[in-house]
Amino acid sequence: MAIIPSAPASADEPLAIMGAGLVGSLLALYLARRGHPVQVFERLPDPRQQGLLGGRSINLALSDRGWRALAGVGVADDIRQVGIPMYRRVMHDGQGQLTFQPYGQENQAIYSINRGNLNCTLLDLAEQEPGVQITFGQKLLQLDLPGRRLHLQDVATGHAHDVAYQRLFGADGAFSAVRGALQRTDRTDYSQQYLEYGYKELTIAAGEGGSWQLEKNALHIWPRGNFLMIALPNLDGSFNATLFFPYEGDKSFAALQTPADVTTFFTTVFPDAVPLMPQLTEEFFDHPTGSLVTIRCFPWAYRDSVLLLGDAAHAIVPFYGQGMNAGFEDCTVLNQLLDQLGEDNWPTVMKAFETQRKPNTDAMADLALYNFVEMRDRVADPRFLLQKKIESKIAAQYPGQWVPLYSRVTFSPDTSYAEAWAAGQRQEAIMARVMPLIQNELDFDKPEVQSLVAQALASAY
Amino acid sequence: MAIIPSAPASADEPLAIMGAGLVGSLLALYLARRGHPVQVFERLPDPRQQGLLGGRSINLALSDRGWRALAGVGVADDIRQVGIPMYRRVMHDGQGQLTFQPYGQENQAIYSINRGNLNCTLLDLAEQEPGVQITFGQKLLQLDLPGRRLHLQDVATGHAHDVAYQRLFGADGAFSAVRGALQRTDRTDYSQQYLEYGYKELTIAAGEGGSWQLEKNALHIWPRGNFLMIALPNLDGSFNATLFFPYEGDKSFAALQTPADVTTFFTTVFPDAVPLMPQLTEEFFDHPTGSLVTIRCFPWAYRDSVLLLGDAAHAIVPFYGQGMNAGFEDCTVLNQLLDQLGEDNWPTVMKAFETQRKPNTDAMADLALYNFVEMRDRVADPRFLLQKKIESKIAAQYPGQWVPLYSRVTFSPDTSYAEAWAAGQRQEAIMARVMPLIQNELDFDKPEVQSLVAQALASAY
Repeated sequence: MAIIPSAPASADEPLAIMGAGLVGSLLALYLARRGHPVQVFERLPDPRQQGLLGGRSINLALSDRGWRALAGVGVADDIRQVGIPMYRRVMHDGQGQLTFQPYGQENQAIYSINRGNLNCTLLDLAEQEPGVQITFGQKLLQLDLPGRRLHLQDVATGHAHDVAYQRLFGADGAFSAVRGALQRTDRTDYSQQYLEYGYKELTIAAGEGGSWQLEKNALHIWPRGNFLMIALPNLDGSFNATLFFPYEGDKSFAALQTPADVTTFFTTVFPDAVPLMPQLTEEFFDHPTGSLVTIRCFPWAYRDSVLLLGDAAHAIVPFYGQGMNAGFEDCTVLNQLLDQLGEDNWPTVMKAFETQRKPNTDAMADLALYNFVEMRDRVADPRFLLQKKIESKIAAQYPGQWVPLYSRVTFSPDTSYAEAWAAGQRQEAIMARVMPLIQNELDFDKPEVQSLVAQALASAY
Repeated sequence: MAIIPSAPASADEPLAIMGAGLVGSLLALYLARRGHPVQVFERLPDPRQQGLLGGRSINLALSDRGWRALAGVGVADDIRQVGIPMYRRVMHDGQGQLTFQPYGQENQAIYSINRGNLNCTLLDLAEQEPGVQITFGQKLLQLDLPGRRLHLQDVATGHAHDVAYQRLFGADGAFSAVRGALQRTDRTDYSQQYLEYGYKELTIAAGEGGSWQLEKNALHIWPRGNFLMIALPNLDGSFNATLFFPYEGDKSFAALQTPADVTTFFTTVFPDAVPLMPQLTEEFFDHPTGSLVTIRCFPWAYRDSVLLLGDAAHAIVPFYGQGMNAGFEDCTVLNQLLDQLGEDNWPTVMKAFETQRKPNTDAMADLALYNFVEMRDRVADPRFLLQKKIESKIAAQYPGQWVPLYSRVTFSPDTSYAEAWAAGQRQEAIMARVMPLIQNELDFDKPEVQSLVAQALASAY
């Protein structure tokens, strides 16, 4: 008897996605691969025609959770071609002296990826799937939740039209219009919290012949206590630098009003970077100052008809390089739940999704805020770097038992964010007891240190 | 030389208030008394014609901060006529046994006031002021913040029209449309957090000839661990009862689906109340289930042109009876700042207002959540009631040095909410050391208790 493969029972059910950014386009791929027709609506114009991607950061750090999600639809290898692995942090001090901190074990790296390229690649791949239709320039004016209708406006013509949906996925980012509608339903918790810091994107120029003027395969950090600059490599030899800086105060955006102010300040605090930034003052005043928001909400689902994913559900600050990775992991988890619970079981799938993801994305939001302090301040502290070296020694001595927090978050996609954060806090408590006994790396071998670590590990797990 | 009294310089500047509820109408009175023309816009119809006031609670507890704000425009005495003083909590246990806890010293009371009556009285008083114009049925469709224009819709006719303003006061409640516009500006922190409890308003009937079937001058509580019912007296002999109850779980709204469920449950847990509630099952299913939200946001001002007050800025849960009092205190504080900083100095006044009020309303939000646990659970605990008696003894022995938290919040309008909360936490820490030495009231006289209290007080202040 021949086995005739049949499409899943709900394959003809129209699914709508609001947002064709990174998460929306990857989600379209996932749902299409499951056999669903998918309609995607995006407010902005097609980035493949416009070359524009709003005011978002240009470079992103793609790591293992992101790779796993891309591999799930078979596109990881394509994208790895256009990524630049970054194996370590390079810290630049006030005199231009460098120190180094590997991100993980040898060969473990996070990847600098251009947001625009990645988005365009995912859009191309999604559109190649049968059943996927992407319409750009569609602004969500109103969402009729009980009636399951999108009220959209074509931005180019001004024409408004309605689209019915059975399920809607809100992947429309930190300022999600879909979430805006959910927020006005009763008993929806919501918060948006801004840092008193903004960011400014600047350029470190390529060298001659497209060479890199700083170490290519690294993420560069200029930690300065209450502010910092970072830089990620581009394929063309340049680096995208980002200054994270207070809005107000002594050293702040408010205090830098003229090109001379900017030049003086940068020359003083980033002396090794300034010669590599020929467009510094122009860019400083031409580029917008971005704000840094953490968004939390719950529930993410409206009955069995709407589900938020990505930044729409859990926008975070960028200091752990996990915003996109967390959004991509949403796609992995949703796909797993559809495998486990069945294609037709949307009420259960949506409920399970928000229940499983919410504690993890909350933990990730906390981790991202925590890492802000680490990046701008602690990585400049010799005691902190010594602690990281001691932790590496513990990790080598107790393989599997001691995994650095950064590795759990970045390189351990089978560990949830919440588990990673809890384990990181346990390890931090152990180090708070160990470090008072340590003056230098060799002290790790002292019997009292060895015994304390052994004891602490035995009782912590 | 004759002194010619002149109107303040800005007296002809048009001020707009969105919202003609309790805070909006009191604010209109304050601003009009200062010589400003005031235009008030309210989404709902005139309650004096409609007799309708949305789904908000029917009775409110007015206390000293509220009285002071009413006295500031000379209307406290009028309103005291229609209030019922409540001198103590009366706790009803599962067998209908009563225990008592005075709210303050003799003659100190909170007042049960009908929300509708109070609102109508304030509207009448505001409209009697020259320069005050109140327009009902005006829905705020859009707020043009930079252009200082309200885009309003007349609800009755559907007609939309624009109103220009120089200053706008958002007194439009917990779901404020004015705040909605501020929220979409960059770097506005905002959160809405719901309890997993809802409330249901019910009626305890008047006795024969309009008599009260429970002690009239008291707030009645049926504390039941994880839920509770309260009742406040009305002038007609009835009481408004409110059940605060989990949405989900074993004992919850979800678990009570039929009139028989309701009757069985109430008879079991509120045996002394049920005979006084002849309409219980009808009301339980006819009345909506209200939700309980805490709203925090910041800033409250948009430049020098818009300011949020009352629930629009700081909606809280009702368990301390301070929501309206906090909103009324906003009017007192704004009026004081206009006295201190000058009528024309709106940028400074708005900044000072939000800076001064925000820590206080945050403290009040925390206090209200804290008191939920106290009312539903702790007041049923004999140890808690013993502690309150010991605290009264300390207060008597150290007059002025020990003021109960409830008194600071409710009867001490010169103490800010933040100061009250901080002092309350200090006192709670002292009681945590004292109570282990106490088995009964007489133990207060034991030398070790006396010495501990004296020492703790000396070091705490």
